[in-house]
Order: sequence, then structure tokens, then C-alpha cells
Amino acid sequence: MSEAAQTLDGWYCLHDFRLIDWTAWKTLSSDERQAAISEFNGLLDKWNTIQSQKEGSHALYSIVGQKADFMLMFVRPTMEELNEIEMEFNKSKLAEYLVPAHSYVSVVELSNYLPAGEDPYQNPQIQARLYPILPTAKHVCFYPMDKRRQGDDNWYMLPMEDRRSMMRSHGMIGRQYAGKVKQIITGSVGFDDYEWGVTLFADDVLQFKKLVYEMRFDEVSARYGEFGSFFVGNILPQERISSYFHV
Amino acid sequence: MSEAAQTLDGWYCLHDFRLIDWTAWKTLSSDERQAAISEFNGLLDKWNTIQSQKEGSHALYSIVGQKADFMLMFVRPTMEELNEIEMEFNKSKLAEYLVPAHSYVSVVELSNYLPAGEDPYQNPQIQARLYPILPTAKHVCFYPMDKRRQGDDNWYMLPMEDRRSMMRSHGMIGRQYAGKVKQIITGSVGFDDYEWGVTLFADDVLQFKKLVYEMRFDEVSARYGEFGSFFVGNILPQERISSYFHV
Amino acid sequence: MSEAAQTLDGWYCLHDFRLIDWTAWKTLSSDERQAAISEFNGLLDKWNTIQSQKEGSHALYSIVGQKADFMLMFVRPTMEELNEIEMEFNKSKLAEYLVPAHSYVSVVELSNYLPAGEDPYQNPQIQARLYPILPTAKHVCFYPMDKRRQGDDNWYMLPMEDRRSMMRSHGMIGRQYAGKVKQIITGSVGFDDYEWGVTLFADDVLQFKKLVYEMRFDEVSARYGEFGSFFVGNILPQERISSYFHV
Amino acid sequence: MSEAAQTLDGWYCLHDFRLIDWTAWKTLSSDERQAAISEFNGLLDKWNTIQSQKEGSHALYSIVGQKADFMLMFVRPTMEELNEIEMEFNKSKLAEYLVPAHSYVSVVELSNYLPAGEDPYQNPQIQARLYPILPTAKHVCFYPMDKRRQGDDNWYMLPMEDRRSMMRSHGMIGRQYAGKVKQIITGSVGFDDYEWGVTLFADDVLQFKKLVYEMRFDEVSARYGEFGSFFVGNILPQERISSYFHV
Amino acid sequence: MSEAAQTLDGWYCLHDFRLIDWTAWKTLSSDERQAAISEFNGLLDKWNTIQSQKEGSHALYSIVGQKADFMLMFVRPTMEELNEIEMEFNKSKLAEYLVPAHSYVSVVELSNYLPAGEDPYQNPQIQARLYPILPTAKHVCFYPMDKRRQGDDNWYMLPMEDRRSMMRSHGMIGRQYAGKVKQIITGSVGFDDYEWGVTLFADDVLQFKKLVYEMRFDEVSARYGEFGSFFVGNILPQERISSYFHV
Repeated sequence: MSEAAQTLDGWYCLHDFRLIDWTAWKTLSSDERQAAISEFNGLLDKWNTIQSQKEGSHALYSIVGQKADFMLMFVRPTMEELNEIEMEFNKSKLAEYLVPAHSYVSVVELSNYLPAGEDPYQNPQIQARLYPILPTAKHVCFYPMDKRRQGDDNWYMLPMEDRRSMMRSHGMIGRQYAGKVKQIITGSVGFDDYEWGVTLFADDVLQFKKLVYEMRFDEVSARYGEFGSFFVGNILPQERISSYFHV
Repeated sequence: MSEAAQTLDGWYCLHDFRLIDWTAWKTLSSDERQAAISEFNGLLDKWNTIQSQKEGSHALYSIVGQKADFMLMFVRPTMEELNEIEMEFNKSKLAEYLVPAHSYVSVVELSNYLPAGEDPYQNPQIQARLYPILPTAKHVCFYPMDKRRQGDDNWYMLPMEDRRSMMRSHGMIGRQYAGKVKQIITGSVGFDDYEWGVTLFADDVLQFKKLVYEMRFDEVSARYGEFGSFFVGNILPQERISSYFHV
Repeated sequence: MSEAAQTLDGWYCLHDFRLIDWTAWKTLSSDERQAAISEFNGLLDKWNTIQSQKEGSHALYSIVGQKADFMLMFVRPTMEELNEIEMEFNKSKLAEYLVPAHSYVSVVELSNYLPAGEDPYQNPQIQARLYPILPTAKHVCFYPMDKRRQGDDNWYMLPMEDRRSMMRSHGMIGRQYAGKVKQIITGSVGFDDYEWGVTLFADDVLQFKKLVYEMRFDEVSARYGEFGSFFVGNILPQERISSYFHV
Repeated sequence: MSEAAQTLDGWYCLHDFRLIDWTAWKTLSSDERQAAISEFNGLLDKWNTIQSQKEGSHALYSIVGQKADFMLMFVRPTMEELNEIEMEFNKSKLAEYLVPAHSYVSVVELSNYLPAGEDPYQNPQIQARLYPILPTAKHVCFYPMDKRRQGDDNWYMLPMEDRRSMMRSHGMIGRQYAGKVKQIITGSVGFDDYEWGVTLFADDVLQFKKLVYEMRFDEVSARYGEFGSFFVGNILPQERISSYFHV
Repeated sequence: MSEAAQTLDGWYCLHDFRLIDWTAWKTLSSDERQAAISEFNGLLDKWNTIQSQKEGSHALYSIVGQKADFMLMFVRPTMEELNEIEMEFNKSKLAEYLVPAHSYVSVVELSNYLPAGEDPYQNPQIQARLYPILPTAKHVCFYPMDKRRQGDDNWYMLPMEDRRSMMRSHGMIGRQYAGKVKQIITGSVGFDDYEWGVTLFADDVLQFKKLVYEMRFDEVSARYGEFGSFFVGNILPQERISSYFHV
């Protein structure tokens, strides 16, 4: 048996993708639509308060293409809170005009392939990464991934030292994008269908392609990466919600 | 031909996942909704009675993410009883506002890779595991799995002794989680699309990730495990049903 | 080129799985529902007559889990008769409240890996197997399967003698379940998406699991078997149809 | 780089599979249904005229099982004509009561693995095969297929001479079914998801199974064939359309 | 780690495939349909203006088969503009009668496997390819693709020189189709589920098949190409839109 990598685990995370049923939405009167949007703004205000209290964070992005119209991403201290958010949103008026498109359940994760020492959970820098306030970058990219277990390309059968060394060189690529792309890794083993979710934030959307493409030539991705669906989008600030839903 | 592992088989098991059609649910009057919830509580009461008579057991969990809203899990002495439960629930008022999301048919199974002796079916400890009263832990995790049969990684072509020795070391990992995670294995060969269902119960949801991740580095999972969809959720006690369905 | 196995082919076979739309069904008046059930009973009576004349046979089973609510299985001398049955059922009142869930088109097949001699089609025992009256066992199990053609595990590249010898030992396992499980193999090469359909009948549902699991350790399944979805169910005798559909 | 096989390409081909929404169909008055059927007969008459002028051909078969209720197959000189047929049919009254089930876009193809000489497009026998009047056999079988490109089983990496020799022996099997099964190969590289469509016609439906099964033991299929969904059906002559749609 | 190929990236690209709900469309009055078409023509006029200002380009093709009825393809300087186009189209009257069928998000890409020198972004020929006015050829073909990472066939583990040399010979095939097929490659790593989108334009639809088939025998495709769904269609000029939607 190979030695399992140790992880640090932070806030629980829900990515919630929705499509808008415009045809049904248009059957509402202007007032009704306004009421639904107000209720949604109320939820956003509530979530803003939680974020300002550093008890969680959220992000709202418009998604390009037919896979989804927008994505809400939440991080919270407990799985129960994610479930409550989801329930409250599902019961709202706006949700009657939305169609679930995709979701992902995970937990913010830092991989401990680096040498240990002090209690990392007490380290303020690590705390900031485990309990992150989500960036308000112009663009988002989300995809889930697995480490491959196939024939000779079986990540989980590799010795810890090989994995650590490959992850180190993999991390080097990421670091070249520092300042351009912010990356939040969430672990989903036991929570959802892939092993990790990757959420990237950038002001220049092309950096997503450059980063993911460059990494694909790295052995960790080239031999051991299995990727799910990719979602890409543009930030949807609260002040643009009215015009976003205007018909 | 490899020697087949012997299994002990207990109660039959149905995992039943449902989505809630909130839009349709809201079209009901408050009284109608209350009536539907009362009827559902009546079913739960009936199932509670069966459980108190140790003639079966059930669990109800709210699921996080869009795959399902809640899961009902049932164990019963016969396949006919599972079918009756399913039929009765499908005919109920509440079910008109639910959408089937996933189900799994299996039977509680203990694997007999351990040395034999006495009739295990007479052993009270084994009886308690074959005919279990389901835990009321805060969280549940369900996933189906297969043992791989692919090229050089073919579990079913391995000699019994190799399988037994790998399963023993695999079981060691599980035992480290004793008191933290309770695991119910159900066999589904001939009943459903995977070979086993795994249902985990824990008060700390993070233990699911830790357990499944640690096991993934064990050869049994690393080389021979094929996993289906993962569902994770929070307990939904009967007294919270009214507020759960309140709109 | 490997020598193709010879097959004996009997009646054509349709497995027809349906879900019930209970919500729509309940919108009918009690009289309308009764009329739909009567019409369905009329079809069953007609099919009973055909069966009593040994011009075909059928079976009706309630399926456990969400994949389907019930399965109708038909065997008939021609593909045209299967199509007519299907059309007549689709046009019935009851069918308006059913949702197609799965179907499988095949033909009863006996594999001729055994040494030949006399004309097998004249052998009464073989006739009884090619043109079977379907059992009325308490439980049914259906699944489709392929023989694998993948890398070194390519059934169709094996010499006839190897295939014959493996199938012989495979058949030995089946024979140990004589009296417990009745098996009907139907061939579907050129008719449906897998190469065979397997329909098992048993009074003890656990025997399905035991048989399929034991066979999985046999080289024919372990190395060469690819399995589709499994459906398991309980017999639904005509006299229980009224209560089955009662709401 | 391997040398690409040369192909001869004839008429463009559309396989169009539909399901019937019987519940909606029954909501029409008898007169409305009759009008819809008359309109459909008008389309068939038009297509018959085109066929009699040898400017195309079509076939109509009832499909067995839930995958589709019927299949319309068209061959035409241009892709534009296929699109027009499709549009005209989609706009018809009958189409309001049909659900698209599957389609396949391809072009009649003869493979030029045989030694060349004269201009094959001038050869009347080849012309008859490239611009075929579709048979009115009792049964049809359709499936799409690829040549495998997987590890050591990569058709496209084989030398031309190996491919030619394997295809020759493959063709020998087909020739044994001359008079029993008529086969139309259509190429779909660049047009649809598989590389070829295979449409078989026979008066004895069992010959489909015999042919496809025998071929499966041939190296071309055993090692290099990847198959999509199979559809099988019975001829639906125009004079039976009224009774076919009668409810 | 292999050296990543450098790419030149141009306009962002959205392929948007839709099905028409003819049944719903027919429920509109002729005037209402005309209004919806006029609104759509207004959008097309707006997009024409943008194209004439060389600030983007678009194409409209009718798709053959059931996968989609038509495809709108857009190229624009920013991801935000693609999202706005999509939103505006989704909110239009016509869109109420359309069903999303498929979409693809990517960016026009030139692969820099050729030796470098001057700043390619300043080269007018390269600019014309990065910011293309889409052709108005009679036919279109779209498919997404990946480079394979599987066992011994792992593109991303190959040395740069091998990849460059294979891509060069691959490009030679494409060049033989110069004047017959125009090809636009768009990169989608980090944006959508495959790594590239390939959009081909030709006046002779058969050239798509010839090109893609010939390339399939080239090692780059034969060993390393993984292909998604293929869509093929005929140009739908704006002046034919009225008759296209006429019912």
C-alpha cells in the first residue's frame, strides 16, 4: 500500500450551475419578475453579510455556452450550511424559472506534499487559503478532475516520493501564473463524482487556456490527469443582476 | 477458475433518491401540502414501528447538490417488502411532487474472506450486522463500486489467497475509522448495475473524505476499484420534515 | 479468422420495461382507471390464450428500484408478432400513463458448443428450450451482456476449442443451480446493443446474486464478460393487477 | 503515414428514426388524424415519384423495441435535398406527434480496396450500387460502426496491404449471404459520430444475426470493429400506414 | 515534462446549435411568427454591421439530421461579447421556440509548431487568420477533438520535436485541400470539454469526408486523435430565413 497524501481541509464548497427558463420567465408580469429579483438580491445581501463576517464566501458568474447560464459558488464552515443555502435558493421565486444544470460538492483542500513542521492550521497564510474570500476576478473556470488509475498510469500505486516530486514540478507551473490566475482546489473524494474540483479566477480569460494547456504537458496531467466538463464564465456583479434578468 | 468468495447475506436494501419539484409543490394550498406531509409522516411512523419490531430499518437524509434532494434507505427481510414500500410511497400525495433521481437495489453483505468455523448466521454479532438498525449519524455517504476486470488489473482472476490478503489489509484501514465511520456494505451482483453499494455514516462529514481517500492508495482500490456516483448528505430527522418542505 | 459458434435459434423475444406516471394516472376517475385496467386484462387474456396454444409466451414482473416499475417479456415465432404486441400495447389506454424505460430485442438461443449429431431442431428437449413457456417463478433478473474484445482479452480471437472448453466449465456452474435458477439466453447480435440477453427466474431471489457472483470468478465472465444494466423484480400475477394499479 | 483507402461515393443518406407520442395523437379528432395521415401519404407519393425517376430512393420500416417506432431512410444526390426532406417532414402535421429518436447522416460508399482500372463511376454495376433504389425486404437492420484505434488494435496504423487482405476475407463472409441479405454501406466520416453506417435488408430477420455474428469472429470485426446501437424492424408498406396509425 | 506548444490566440468563438420546436412555433399566429423572424433579422443585421466593421464575424448554417436544426457560429474579441450575444438571442422571441442542442466555447488558435522569428501578431496574414471573417461556403462541418493520453499513445508525453514533425506532415494533408476546404481551428483547453474545435467550410460537402478520412490514416489522428460529435450542414443565407421558418 502506498502512503496516502495528507490534506488540510477548510470550508465546504458548493458549485451550483443553473439554466434560465426564459420562456417561463417572460410569462411573469414585470412586477412579479421584479419581486423575484428583489428576493434574490435579499439572498445575496444575506450572503454578503456572512462574507463580511468571514463566516463564508460566495461568487456569482455568468457562464458562456449552453451548459449553464450562471454559477453560484459557496464556501461555508459546514455541510449543513451548504444544504440550507441550496434549500433556501430552491424555494425562492427565481428558482421556479431556473433549471439545475450541474453541481459539485467538495471542501477547500491544501495538499500536504510539502515537508511538515508546525501545525499548519495555525498558520495565518494557510488559514487564508483554507477559509478563502472568493476573488472577484473578471472570469472564472471550473472543472473537476481525477488522478488516473489505469494500467501503467496509476497515480495511487506510485511511491509517495514520486508523487511529491511530480506535484512539486506541477506546482512550479502554477506559480508562473501567480498574479494572473488564482486557483482554489477543493477535494471531493467521498463527496462527489471526481476527486477534485479546480476553480480558477483571472482577469484575462486567456490565461485559463494557457495555464491548463501548459500543465497538460506536465507528467502529472499528461499521464495521470482525467478531466470532467469545463465551465467558463464572466463575473456577474450584483448591480448587473437586474439588467441580466431583464426581458 | 478462481474460487469465489463466500458471502453472508442479510436484509435486502433499497436506496431511493428523489428530487423535489418545488414549482409544482408551491401550486398546492397550504392545507394540501400539510396533508401530503401528514401522509408521509404516517408512512414514516409505520416504518418506525417496523424498525422498533426489528423487522427492518430505514434512514432519511437530505442530499447536498443537485443530484438529489433527499435519500430514503430501507432494509427489509424480503425483496417483496422493498417493492411494496416503493409502491406505497410512489402512490402517496408527496410523491406527485418528487422526481426519481437514483436508486440502488442490493442486500446487506458480509464478506467471508475470514477463516470459517461455526455457523456465522447464528453469531449474534454477525446477526446484528446482517440485519442492522441503520445509524442516525449526522451524515451519510453512498456510492456503488465494482472490482475491476481490465487487462492486468483483473480482481476476479486473482487467486483467493491474494484477494483475501489484500482485503485484510484493506479492512485494516476501515478499522482505523472505528467509532468515526460506520460502514454498511450491500452486495448488488445480479440486482443492480454495480457489484456493491457502500453506505457510510459519520457525525463528522470530513471522515468520509479521509476514509475514502486513504483507501484509494490501498491496492484493492488503487488497482481494482471502479467507483460510481457519490452522494453525500445530512440527516433529516422526522421532526424537521415540516420545515424541510415548508414553502 | 476464428470459427464462429453455431447457434440454435427459437422464438423472438421482447423485454419491455415501463415506468408508471402515477401523477397522471390519479387524474383519471376511478371508472376510467378501471376501464384501462380491464383493457390491459383483455390483452393479458389474449396473450394467455396464445400461450395455452403454445404459440408464444409472456411474463409480467414488478421491478424493484427506479429503473422501471414493471417488465413485460414476450416470446413469439416472428419479429412481426413482437411488433404487433408492442403497437397494440402502446395504443392502449393504460400505456398513456406509462413511460418507456428500457427494452431489449433478441431471439431465444442455444449455443452449439456441444458436439453435434442429429438435427437438434427435431429434439423435443431442445424444442422445449427454443420455444419456452416462460416460468412463473417468484423473481426475475434480466441483464444484457457482451463477450469482450479488448487488447489481450478478445473472445472472438480465441480458437474455437478454447472457447468451447471455457463455455463447458462455465455451464458447469449454471448446472449447480439447476432447480434453483432457470436461465433463458437470448441472442441479440444484429438486433440490439449487446450480444446476449440473460433472463433468470428463481423462487429465492438471493440465488441470482449467488449464481452471477460465482460465475464472475469464472474466466469466461472474469476476462471476457461485459455486462449492461441489471433489472430485478417480483412476479406480478394477473389477479394482483387491480391492486397494483389501485390509487 | 498509412495510405488511405480510396472510396467511391454515391448518394447522400439520412436515416431518420422517430417515436410516436400516442397520448397526444389520441387527443386529435379522427378527421384531424386522417388529415395528418393524408399529408404524410402525400409526402410518400412525392418521394415515390422521385424514386421512379431514379433521383433518389427511400424506405419506411417499423422498428421493434422502445428505441424508435419507425425509421425513414432517404438517399438523394445532395445534402441539401436531405435537409429539405427533413424540414418538410418536420413541418408536417404528423411530425407534431412524433419525437426524434435517432438520426444518421452519411453517403453511400463503395470501398476501393479492390484493384482499380477503368473509371468505376462509369461502370453500370457500380452506379447501381452508388445510387441504389432501396430494397423492399421484409426486415431492416441498421447500426453505425468505427474501425478501432486502440493500443495494438489500430486499424488506421496498419499497412494498406494488411487492411486490403483482411477486408477481402471479410467480404467473403458477406458474399455467403448473397441472396439472403442485401447490405448498403454508407460512409459518415466528417458527417456523423461513427465512421460508417451499415444498413442490412433481408426477408428472414434471423439472417441479420447470423451474418453479424459470423463476421464478429473475423479479425476485421473481432479486433477492429466498434459498434453503435442496433435497430431492427419490419417493413411498413404505404398501404398499411392507415392501420399503423389507427387508434 | 514535455515542452508545451506555443499558440497564437485570436477572437473568442461560440458555436451555438439549436433545435426548432415546430409544434410550439405553429401555435403562434402568422403575425407573431413574422414579428419573431423580424426580430431575429434585426439581430442578424446588427451582427452584419459588426462584421463589416471587422469587429467580429458570424455564420448561420442549417444542420442535417436530428442533432440540431441550425448552428450560429460567432467570433468576437472578448468572452463578454459572446456572452452578451448569447443572452440577447436567448431573450428574443424566436428563442422561445428553440431548444438548445449543443454549444462550444473556444478561441481561434494558430499552432506555433513552425519556427518563430518576427512577432506573429503583427503579421497581416496571421492577423487575417486569428481574426477571421467566416467564409460563406455552401457547407459546414464542426467537430471537437482531443489529443489522446492513453497508455503508449500519449501525445503530451512526446518530445516537442516528434510532435512538431508529426504536425508538419499532418498539415501537408490539409494543404492538399487548399481551395476546397477552409479550416478554422479553435482552442478550447480550459474553456470546454475537448481541447480543440475544428470548423471546416467547403462548397463540395464530400470534401469534408475525404479530408477527415485521409487524415485519419495519418499518425497524428490514427494514434492520437479522439473525436467528439460531428455536425454537418448547409448554408442558410439571411434571405432564406423567412422560408426556412415558414409553416
